[in-house]
Amino acid sequence: MIRVFICGGSGYTGCELLRILSNHPHVVVTGVTSERSAGRSVVELFPNLRPYENLIYEPLQVENIIDKAEVFFMALPHAKSQTAVHSIFHEAKTVIDLSADYRLRDVKVYEEWYRVPHRYKTTLKKAVYGLPEIYAKQIAEARLVANPGCYPTGAILGLYPALKNKLIDTDTIVIDSTSGVSGAGRTSDIRFSHCEVHEGFKAYAVTTHRHTPEIEQELSAIAKKDIKVNFTPHLAPFDRGILTTIYARLRKDIGTEKILDMYKRLYAGQMFTRVLNRGAFPDVKNVRGTNLCEIGLTVNKITKTLIIVTAIDNLTKGASGQAVHNMNLMLGFDEMTALDLVALHP
Amino acid sequence: MIRVFICGGSGYTGCELLRILSNHPHVVVTGVTSERSAGRSVVELFPNLRPYENLIYEPLQVENIIDKAEVFFMALPHAKSQTAVHSIFHEAKTVIDLSADYRLRDVKVYEEWYRVPHRYKTTLKKAVYGLPEIYAKQIAEARLVANPGCYPTGAILGLYPALKNKLIDTDTIVIDSTSGVSGAGRTSDIRFSHCEVHEGFKAYAVTTHRHTPEIEQELSAIAKKDIKVNFTPHLAPFDRGILTTIYARLRKDIGTEKILDMYKRLYAGQMFTRVLNRGAFPDVKNVRGTNLCEIGLTVNKITKTLIIVTAIDNLTKGASGQAVHNMNLMLGFDEMTALDLVALHP
Amino acid sequence: MIRVFICGGSGYTGCELLRILSNHPHVVVTGVTSERSAGRSVVELFPNLRPYENLIYEPLQVENIIDKAEVFFMALPHAKSQTAVHSIFHEAKTVIDLSADYRLRDVKVYEEWYRVPHRYKTTLKKAVYGLPEIYAKQIAEARLVANPGCYPTGAILGLYPALKNKLIDTDTIVIDSTSGVSGAGRTSDIRFSHCEVHEGFKAYAVTTHRHTPEIEQELSAIAKKDIKVNFTPHLAPFDRGILTTIYARLRKDIGTEKILDMYKRLYAGQMFTRVLNRGAFPDVKNVRGTNLCEIGLTVNKITKTLIIVTAIDNLTKGASGQAVHNMNLMLGFDEMTALDLVALHP
Amino acid sequence: MIRVFICGGSGYTGCELLRILSNHPHVVVTGVTSERSAGRSVVELFPNLRPYENLIYEPLQVENIIDKAEVFFMALPHAKSQTAVHSIFHEAKTVIDLSADYRLRDVKVYEEWYRVPHRYKTTLKKAVYGLPEIYAKQIAEARLVANPGCYPTGAILGLYPALKNKLIDTDTIVIDSTSGVSGAGRTSDIRFSHCEVHEGFKAYAVTTHRHTPEIEQELSAIAKKDIKVNFTPHLAPFDRGILTTIYARLRKDIGTEKILDMYKRLYAGQMFTRVLNRGAFPDVKNVRGTNLCEIGLTVNKITKTLIIVTAIDNLTKGASGQAVHNMNLMLGFDEMTALDLVALHP
Repeated sequence: MIRVFICGGSGYTGCELLRILSNHPHVVVTGVTSERSAGRSVVELFPNLRPYENLIYEPLQVENIIDKAEVFFMALPHAKSQTAVHSIFHEAKTVIDLSADYRLRDVKVYEEWYRVPHRYKTTLKKAVYGLPEIYAKQIAEARLVANPGCYPTGAILGLYPALKNKLIDTDTIVIDSTSGVSGAGRTSDIRFSHCEVHEGFKAYAVTTHRHTPEIEQELSAIAKKDIKVNFTPHLAPFDRGILTTIYARLRKDIGTEKILDMYKRLYAGQMFTRVLNRGAFPDVKNVRGTNLCEIGLTVNKITKTLIIVTAIDNLTKGASGQAVHNMNLMLGFDEMTALDLVALHP
Repeated sequence: MIRVFICGGSGYTGCELLRILSNHPHVVVTGVTSERSAGRSVVELFPNLRPYENLIYEPLQVENIIDKAEVFFMALPHAKSQTAVHSIFHEAKTVIDLSADYRLRDVKVYEEWYRVPHRYKTTLKKAVYGLPEIYAKQIAEARLVANPGCYPTGAILGLYPALKNKLIDTDTIVIDSTSGVSGAGRTSDIRFSHCEVHEGFKAYAVTTHRHTPEIEQELSAIAKKDIKVNFTPHLAPFDRGILTTIYARLRKDIGTEKILDMYKRLYAGQMFTRVLNRGAFPDVKNVRGTNLCEIGLTVNKITKTLIIVTAIDNLTKGASGQAVHNMNLMLGFDEMTALDLVALHP
Repeated sequence: MIRVFICGGSGYTGCELLRILSNHPHVVVTGVTSERSAGRSVVELFPNLRPYENLIYEPLQVENIIDKAEVFFMALPHAKSQTAVHSIFHEAKTVIDLSADYRLRDVKVYEEWYRVPHRYKTTLKKAVYGLPEIYAKQIAEARLVANPGCYPTGAILGLYPALKNKLIDTDTIVIDSTSGVSGAGRTSDIRFSHCEVHEGFKAYAVTTHRHTPEIEQELSAIAKKDIKVNFTPHLAPFDRGILTTIYARLRKDIGTEKILDMYKRLYAGQMFTRVLNRGAFPDVKNVRGTNLCEIGLTVNKITKTLIIVTAIDNLTKGASGQAVHNMNLMLGFDEMTALDLVALHP
Repeated sequence: MIRVFICGGSGYTGCELLRILSNHPHVVVTGVTSERSAGRSVVELFPNLRPYENLIYEPLQVENIIDKAEVFFMALPHAKSQTAVHSIFHEAKTVIDLSADYRLRDVKVYEEWYRVPHRYKTTLKKAVYGLPEIYAKQIAEARLVANPGCYPTGAILGLYPALKNKLIDTDTIVIDSTSGVSGAGRTSDIRFSHCEVHEGFKAYAVTTHRHTPEIEQELSAIAKKDIKVNFTPHLAPFDRGILTTIYARLRKDIGTEKILDMYKRLYAGQMFTRVLNRGAFPDVKNVRGTNLCEIGLTVNKITKTLIIVTAIDNLTKGASGQAVHNMNLMLGFDEMTALDLVALHP
């Protein structure tokens, strides 16, 4: 049994990590930290997590926790993650960081968007961007993985085959996303109270969302050219899921069937990314609680535009499920271990 | 008191018409039709409509109803509305048609998208498109108004000042809309049952929604050139409201403030369309049950794109509220009559 | 025009008062207080309250506000309301207190349940319990009204005719209530965040809810004997409304029809309380945003039990609507003024 | 591998059976019937059921399906289940019937409440009521199990220890239940559409719900005396779960702690029924998608009443999870097989 430890386990991604890992036959969770909830039991915060009845939150002190595990999941807020990741990584541990701190390769971009300095540039260079559909090989060899953001996961997987096959004009990309409320985390902010969210729908952080440079970094890497996008997130009154609708002008006259073929070919062998048949489009409901990304697409012939729609669960494929997927790759387990999840319906 | 009559009053737009008209001091509802519910009382279907305790649905037979009113609201399904509108209009009545049958000026476009013939071309020519922000004058002089579709209302009001001021490249328009469930009408279709919709979010009718030609017709009329758009509707688990996020490439280097000024200037004096201040974006929650259209916008300087967000209540500004607004204009009442509504919060 | 002032206007009952008063032809709101939001505009907190675009929150200082109005609505938390109500009442103003501070006639009971001393016993004696269906006459003559709690309103109106007619064994009363989330107020408490409430349903404060003594006081007054009840509140994932299901053993062999007759007779002439016909039961959806209380009932012949179900909107009939109703009675306006509201559907 | 077959698999209990069985290591689903959806694939109706991509609905013809499996789950509507269960049982198969047809031991009671004759009285006598907490031994020896109704499961488990220990006056039982919308099944009935249910809450089938005699039968069997109850179901706007709040007068002066002890003792060793600690009450959210029944209770000392609250997922513990539990017992598998489920949060 491999011992795993979770730093920052009192949020929804921590809860989701614990839920998924409770089904993992090769690992055991040996501890979990929380500053605010230190001393309280996990089940007190999350009564659904019955298998962890004896797990108590402890404060994050590297010297106290470092010997408790071989693998560390870091689910801390950005900026707070930097030092902890650095320290644990340099104790020769395997680290999967769910924060934004090791995702952006260009320190300047990080500092501009997150408004904090990055103090571990050498460590940053060791980090692999943990999107298995693109970087599985590098992940398998890495000891530090930067787990992708939720919006970037849905956006990049939607555009990857289109860019790889040079189908679209990279100056025309519009990424329109809608997230459920859990995307804001486990928060007492009144803006996410039931009374304020229910029967509401709105755009937020228009042109200013911090996932924008992450999306642009990865699309640019795929296309091997500098790409800037229009990205608009929206908040909808459901709890889990992100739907992303993407628009881009086609460079050539090509039909829906052919593009679907390209998508299916590129994602063949991927266990968690699934291209739907012509005419079908995904619904976040169908991937709830799973590590799946479902993709539908069509061509608007009149406007010569490719329209791609992707659905993920922001807490699973968009965070904790993908983190476990990365761990499976890093430790050489079967990719599906603990991730063979079926969505509840309804 | 002006007598008004509603043809097709057992759906949600009929219910909403009755709700609004119950506060109108100058009109009285003298009857309402429904084929399926003929003989049942309005309150049986809609227990909220207490002021109509004595109103009973009757079948639509023009000869029986024609003398009962001066004004007829037609809330029938498309194709079924055609003949009824034609007959009642030719009995010298004032007609406001909430169906799609008299919205598209080009019969060929109508027949292509709705897959039924249009048999009343002369009557069609008399119809005025009932978007008061643009056509108030013509509406005031008309006796037949084609009330706009819900998605077109939000899309056109969002783009009108941008097109009028020639700000955008008309080849690059993306209209991404999300509607609540009432947009599907009062239907027993299992796809709109609570269990299928709740905790779900999806795109539908991608590139094929029938409101597309209506949007294109009106944008083309404003820009005085042929415009084609990418329009994608989505379904979200709330009951009322449409949020529309619009993207278009700017033709010139112009900032958010200046564009906001142009929007505010063009909509000055409009009672129901309201441009928010810089940094603010609308939420469908704030316009629920009202006849308002709220608009926020910003410029993405890097991609040179104008991003506009509009919110309406699909049943009020997107249907019955706008229909009453049109009636007020046609009969010379104050525009705000019966429409001075404040949204519930929460 | 009568000038009215709201002390404590940044919660949902304050928002609802403003919404209702915006339609009142005989009053004008001259000010509103909030400690935390002093200096901010009402519209900033509640973008739905467009008619109040110039209203700014100010801190509650009696000397500053006392000359601004003839009528004061007090929507402060319990304990905080005591002194303010006392001071303003003694400046010869008309006061409607929405807090719990002047509802319980027995100071000991108040101090036991609310765990704070009551320091204004003489003022307390002047207060009339503001349930118009029972105390309309006293309200009309009062200058201080204690507006009933939300749960008590639904519970008392459901039991009033049964007790008045001595139909039930008063030792057997079970009151099982379910409230929407707005009952918790406008709060950033994580327990009322969308993610914690949605898809959930639970009982809370079982046997300990502070509305229990208020219910018991009023039922005892009606029955002219000491009554104790089982009262269990529940929290459900909707925003507005309280449904109360009441069980009590019948003292005599009497049928549903006869009891319905007694209920209809006692509530004849009441504008806001409405007894449904046999077989019909209320739904909170039908009274949302209105000042109505709807009542359905039936007899279980086998268990000889009367089962009564009532529905109200907790923010309207259960708080601000009833407060305006009380004001109308106190000032001699028509009862329906500003309260002739029709629920949205859907 | 044991082969299992599902008769009636196009509803939500069928979907839930397939979800749970997809994780069962000792069984394989060999077929599933649906009259209306015959010829369509399971994944077409339920896109979440990816592991069944090759499973196609077939019509129910006993001669065609009888050789396909050793175990048959019957998820047909009541009345329709009778004959199919009878035929398959007499082919020496193991049968778990999720309908109401074999639950009521007294044929007269069945015929009175369900308004259809029961034609298989001898078969009915072979049926064991499948509530494992009470009948585990009989279930293990049975070949025909009548799986309990959803409301009865929550009600009986809440009252079993109280009755067993003769704590309560059996003439005073009130059972007040609230179900999510999936309790109505996968239905296109407009009453369960999103627009009609959302933001609503109501009682229904007051005194007339068909689960009443089932509850009474089992409570009477436990208490060894004839028991009649007041049972009121409510409909709330969530999809999964039943919360049941039970009231009964105590026969002796006994405190909460002692009663909790009795409950914990009686349910010790039960894997799926869990008594919460003093002061804690269940929430349907915590048991969603699991086979758990959680129970909280307290004594109202003033009214001498025991108040018990239970939570289950109506589709899992209230239907398909309990059915798989029964199968595990009948086939000698570990009780937890395929049922070691952790609820999603949020």
